[in-house]
Amino acid sequence: MSEASLQAQAGPLISYEPMGVRAHARPGETLLDCARRSKIRIASSCGGHGRCMTCTVQVTDGEVPEPSAADLEAFSGRRIAEGWRRSCQAAASASCTVHVPARSTAAPVRTQVDSAGLPVALDPAVRALDFQLAPASLEDCRPDDRRLLEELRRRHGDLGPLHFDLDAARGLPAALRRNDWRGRAVLRGSEIVAVAGPDARLLGLAVDLGTTNISGLLVDLESGTTLAATGLENPQTSYGSDLISYASLIRRKPEKAALLQQLAIDALNSLSTDLCDAVGLKASDIAEMTVAGNTMMHHLLLGLPVRDLASSPFIPALSAAHDVEARDLGVEIAPGGVIHLLPNIAGFVGGDHVAALLATIGQADGPVITMDIGTNTELSLIRGDEIISVSCPSGPAFEGGNISCGMRAAVGAIESVRVTSHGVRIKTIEDAPAVGICGSGVLDVLAQMYQSGVIDKRGRMQEGHPRVREGRFGRELVLADEGETGGPAVVFTQDDVRAVQLAKAAIRAGCDHLLSLAGLSENDLDKVLIAGAFGSYIDVASAITAGLLPDLPFNRFAQVGNAAGEGARQVLLSRERREEAGCIALRARYAELASSKAFLPAFSKRIGFAELRHLKTSAQITGK
Amino acid sequence: MSEASLQAQAGPLISYEPMGVRAHARPGETLLDCARRSKIRIASSCGGHGRCMTCTVQVTDGEVPEPSAADLEAFSGRRIAEGWRRSCQAAASASCTVHVPARSTAAPVRTQVDSAGLPVALDPAVRALDFQLAPASLEDCRPDDRRLLEELRRRHGDLGPLHFDLDAARGLPAALRRNDWRGRAVLRGSEIVAVAGPDARLLGLAVDLGTTNISGLLVDLESGTTLAATGLENPQTSYGSDLISYASLIRRKPEKAALLQQLAIDALNSLSTDLCDAVGLKASDIAEMTVAGNTMMHHLLLGLPVRDLASSPFIPALSAAHDVEARDLGVEIAPGGVIHLLPNIAGFVGGDHVAALLATIGQADGPVITMDIGTNTELSLIRGDEIISVSCPSGPAFEGGNISCGMRAAVGAIESVRVTSHGVRIKTIEDAPAVGICGSGVLDVLAQMYQSGVIDKRGRMQEGHPRVREGRFGRELVLADEGETGGPAVVFTQDDVRAVQLAKAAIRAGCDHLLSLAGLSENDLDKVLIAGAFGSYIDVASAITAGLLPDLPFNRFAQVGNAAGEGARQVLLSRERREEAGCIALRARYAELASSKAFLPAFSKRIGFAELRHLKTSAQITGK
Repeated sequence: MSEASLQAQAGPLISYEPMGVRAHARPGETLLDCARRSKIRIASSCGGHGRCMTCTVQVTDGEVPEPSAADLEAFSGRRIAEGWRRSCQAAASASCTVHVPARSTAAPVRTQVDSAGLPVALDPAVRALDFQLAPASLEDCRPDDRRLLEELRRRHGDLGPLHFDLDAARGLPAALRRNDWRGRAVLRGSEIVAVAGPDARLLGLAVDLGTTNISGLLVDLESGTTLAATGLENPQTSYGSDLISYASLIRRKPEKAALLQQLAIDALNSLSTDLCDAVGLKASDIAEMTVAGNTMMHHLLLGLPVRDLASSPFIPALSAAHDVEARDLGVEIAPGGVIHLLPNIAGFVGGDHVAALLATIGQADGPVITMDIGTNTELSLIRGDEIISVSCPSGPAFEGGNISCGMRAAVGAIESVRVTSHGVRIKTIEDAPAVGICGSGVLDVLAQMYQSGVIDKRGRMQEGHPRVREGRFGRELVLADEGETGGPAVVFTQDDVRAVQLAKAAIRAGCDHLLSLAGLSENDLDKVLIAGAFGSYIDVASAITAGLLPDLPFNRFAQVGNAAGEGARQVLLSRERREEAGCIALRARYAELASSKAFLPAFSKRIGFAELRHLKTSAQITGK
Repeated sequence: MSEASLQAQAGPLISYEPMGVRAHARPGETLLDCARRSKIRIASSCGGHGRCMTCTVQVTDGEVPEPSAADLEAFSGRRIAEGWRRSCQAAASASCTVHVPARSTAAPVRTQVDSAGLPVALDPAVRALDFQLAPASLEDCRPDDRRLLEELRRRHGDLGPLHFDLDAARGLPAALRRNDWRGRAVLRGSEIVAVAGPDARLLGLAVDLGTTNISGLLVDLESGTTLAATGLENPQTSYGSDLISYASLIRRKPEKAALLQQLAIDALNSLSTDLCDAVGLKASDIAEMTVAGNTMMHHLLLGLPVRDLASSPFIPALSAAHDVEARDLGVEIAPGGVIHLLPNIAGFVGGDHVAALLATIGQADGPVITMDIGTNTELSLIRGDEIISVSCPSGPAFEGGNISCGMRAAVGAIESVRVTSHGVRIKTIEDAPAVGICGSGVLDVLAQMYQSGVIDKRGRMQEGHPRVREGRFGRELVLADEGETGGPAVVFTQDDVRAVQLAKAAIRAGCDHLLSLAGLSENDLDKVLIAGAFGSYIDVASAITAGLLPDLPFNRFAQVGNAAGEGARQVLLSRERREEAGCIALRARYAELASSKAFLPAFSKRIGFAELRHLKTSAQITGK
């Protein structure tokens, strides 16, 4: 084919700003598809189905795509005229320049990597044994494996039957001769998983594989010290923000499962490389990795089929803890290194929740509810040995999804809000000009609107507040107007209020359901533990005011941070904790809300707002 | 690139007959290289280094390649003029027709697949458990793995902790739903390696992975019955016929290791498919495979490095028995099916010898020598719990290699010979016109030449016999002349005599060495067990006459057939036998001949011929 015909076949040239990336679109692609293919991340809470606004972009130059019927509904005439489109709805059929606003970029600043770091008795599944061998010769021509095993037994006592991982055996001759017959044998149970040099470290990596964010802790398995911690956005995010959107994607395009798996694997490799680089160590010294993820992430990472997980009755293929050779997935750690995946409880209650339970269990004597709020919210009630778990489809509202000006917790996101009778005060991340509103802000604004009378007990927006105006889609509260933002206004609409009401009602009804199954009332709860990234940033008072959390004294709540990551760390450091995680998963009784007659009435009851005791304590700009 | 330029770039066209295969040679290729690339097997005992004659071909049409200096030495002027060349020495630089004589094709008719088939208490490493599950529903949404495990425990009692192989888990949802929630779980230890349909068979495959031939037994692991047996030539053979030629190949071209590995894997796949097809079963029902191979085959199959195995002091990377997931090698059996490789003793005493020892041990009360004669000959002396093993570099003479008219045991091969004072009588395989001489014939001819006085006690060929003539390379015994063969004569030269003398002396000196290490004399031996394909076809009387075997009464010898294959069958059927194989390998003390001062004198002593008691019993055309 000639150069000229190649040129003629190339599609329209799309320039994405401010990234400065140019790409030729392929026939039939949308602006979102083309961006994904070009490695530009644009948030897409609904997975590119035109059901949210998170992928909004502005075409600032070149040929502006015709607005779709859905976009004509979604945007005002002015914004349509200004070139605003949802990138999933706009065809990339002509060359143009696309401005991706900060609100739509998928690069959060708040990836939670901290963990409680509770002391754990050090007893990891891997250990390193030092050796120094006699060199091979014609007089002593023992095979390499036997020479090493005999010396290990001589030096370290009875080790029981041992065998070599195949890749460790493949590397054995070179490792022995390169290091002058000295080194360290890395054992995992009865298997030698690596033969390293005499100065090698014994490292482990604990990973919280979340739908939105992935965080990792690099740990020295001989001292128990955390050497480095980091987080990154889950690169799968640009294909959807919740389990249902992944499931729907894979139902339509089964071949995407392999792509999503590869993205997760790439992320694990990035994580291990970044962490090791940061402290000057090698990823090949990571002897074991533990991963706590929800059931969908777990299945995608392992390449398990998700068809039955993705549709009712939502059955996982595999729930038990699973060890997989890292190389079988293409994760580059020690030759025979293993990835330990924590067990799942049910289709919507995964290893991340088991890890959170493991990290938090035993913090109170009486009944406890542990919750991890996300697009899917897992709740467990723990009373003695009893664990009952439910899962609520809370939707992406608390992650800024399905909210007209919603965004991830990035620079310029409104993170807290105070509404008084005469105005609105906002606090943005890094005090930048407001570009949208993130989860904690969404919860605040709902609580504040109710408290200040902007919405009534049923959530209807009232006239008369100076910042309430009639927008294209009905009433909206202006959080920052065009003058304040230097761009489009950031507003909170009646539809946004409804979306948050549905989310908080689902979670609260889940609590109600758990309590009713256990025969308890809210006041019987000793503790409510709020785990996870969103849970760490919310204002508990706002959450009570909004009706997300039960109306209990503040001292009964604890925001426990990244409990899933802490659980992953514990099972990395301790085989006893790993056993315990398995017991928790087996002990937990999963109650399916969809099959419960009582759930829908409870949900309806929780959509509105209640009189509360705590109004006076909330509504502060917290300065976080 | 234009069609014309492609045509111009194509190399000379080589037509191989009688196969009828045409191939364009690449720059620098020899006729042997081009044949290999075109999947034509030409024997090549020395691995293509011009050190033997096994790859001889005749260029019958087109441009005859210039003879190399080495070929001018190797062939008579007449044969050079007739177009005879060694295919490893002739450049494929011009289009021509190449006739590959039967002697040079690498398709043996004698692949030994029989085995003693001794009764073994059935206790295989895998077993199948039947199940019938309640279907999943919203009311009973247990994960698939837990549903199955709970039912297995309910139906089959305490099974201890069980976990799923990842591929078995990947197939689980479909397997359950396809078979209406009924089926069979295949367990290997604590691992579920497959979930099959309710009518699935539980099969195993025992493989003797020889340098020359590969044989397999397909076994029903629930009844212990052998369902089918077959053998095929090891496709690696066209790259060499012994360990040293492989080692030398890989030292020069390390990338060939992957090719040799792939050839072995392809052969295992052919074997399992052929065997299953023959009895109408599926290779995916093979739950386990056992493989007995020499250390080089073992290392090549597993992709272990062979650099240190290939040069002194010949150290294996791995000697212990090893289980590898079949899929890690690309061998297609049950999803989580495992290949069990028998343990090795040393660089030149591999799992095939361990298998032979396992199959034969305990057949006598007193001391026993078990030997497997091949290009490398392994010998073990067993006395009570004591096992001493040596390995002799006997060379390919007994497989027809490095013998001027040597060939594999194929149609037309001279398999037995009688030499009288007035002539020669031969017996060929399938009574076809003689094209060459195979191993048993080689041994016969040596014994007969000595017995009839054609060679003296030192192996020098004498004048005066009517079939002895002066050939280009000195004296030769004509076994079949041009008139009898309808082609080139089949002769046995002075150099051939020397080659066989070296081979038999190496083996016999190995025996001497073993006896001396144990402080025994030949007459102390209760039994001499001769295992392997060559050993099955030799005339024991000839072997004694030639000095290959000690001069003991016939009833102390036993030709035990494919003992390696029988050992592989036993470890497939019985975990206790598998344990025993491991004990044998650990118990065996390997004595390196190269480091022994006593070996070379013993070897020199055994090169000549001795007065014998048994001359009268040999020299019969056995009619085999």
